[in-house]
Amino acid sequence: MTVGANRMIVYLAGPDIFFPDAIEIGARKKALCRQYGIEGLYPLDEPLPTRPTRAETAMAIYQADLAMMHRADAVIANLTPFRGPSADPGTVFELAWMLAHAKPSFGYSTDPRSLHARTPPDGTTVEDFDQPENLMIACALTAAGTPLVVHEDGLTAFETCLEALCRRAAHASTSDRPGI
Amino acid sequence: MTVGANRMIVYLAGPDIFFPDAIEIGARKKALCRQYGIEGLYPLDEPLPTRPTRAETAMAIYQADLAMMHRADAVIANLTPFRGPSADPGTVFELAWMLAHAKPSFGYSTDPRSLHARTPPDGTTVEDFDQPENLMIACALTAAGTPLVVHEDGLTAFETCLEALCRRAAHASTSDRPGI
Repeated sequence: MTVGANRMIVYLAGPDIFFPDAIEIGARKKALCRQYGIEGLYPLDEPLPTRPTRAETAMAIYQADLAMMHRADAVIANLTPFRGPSADPGTVFELAWMLAHAKPSFGYSTDPRSLHARTPPDGTTVEDFDQPENLMIACALTAAGTPLVVHEDGLTAFETCLEALCRRAAHASTSDRPGI
Repeated sequence: MTVGANRMIVYLAGPDIFFPDAIEIGARKKALCRQYGIEGLYPLDEPLPTRPTRAETAMAIYQADLAMMHRADAVIANLTPFRGPSADPGTVFELAWMLAHAKPSFGYSTDPRSLHARTPPDGTTVEDFDQPENLMIACALTAAGTPLVVHEDGLTAFETCLEALCRRAAHASTSDRPGI
């Protein structure tokens, strides 16, 4: 992970791509990244591929997103609840993949409630550990030293993640210097 | 991944642990695994750890589950929609983690509809690629050669995954033999 001459690259994961203002959200996030000297990769940066069948189109999108994740040094994931009490599952998949590849991984949510507080009773056990998400997600981030950021304004939460990423990159850069 | 002398170990991921009959579901799955000469690891195999705070208890559970995932040779994930149109996010996290570690990964769902068909309109774009889940999940499994198994009976779907796992293990075992 580098800053300076080699610009750091961060993958911007989230259900943002499904919102009516998906392009604008991506542009705002990428502009914020640039302010920090970071390049943001957003899944909608390129036109969606089209293939003869829907299954082939899906696979082409998957491969394009995976290529971005390979290229990125880090990920910032929007884990705000989406279509239910938890984060978008595609975003969760990408976050876990980046964590498993030991890339610095950050997550944020605009929902200040615990998972338990926001999950309607349905006869199943709702985990009650005062965590902002399912414990596999929340604790994986905590264990990685990057606990899930919660702020009711999404862009503020995103910027908090960007700042943390820069601090980590600066620290890594300093640690790399021989003799210091 | 080995069969025979060294028993293969599979991690049993899913929201099963949140259901009132969680223990019984685990017992049935583990019994099926034994029929195939496989050891199933289920998150409820050990009593849940207790720690002074809820956050510490959550972290202890996370670490215990992660240790099982490290120990396992493969994963079979129940991706049936849970609390919304998509799979349990903890399960998705674990599946992605195992895939990222290149461990044979299988997933099943009891919902025969596509993600698009079962997602209520809410003003956001619902991906329409005739996939059983978010494309990152469905296509990752397809790309790994283990497309998501769909069957309305969960245990039947689970057993289909077990059979596929055994075939893959037998194939890997044969491929390993020098001179063949």
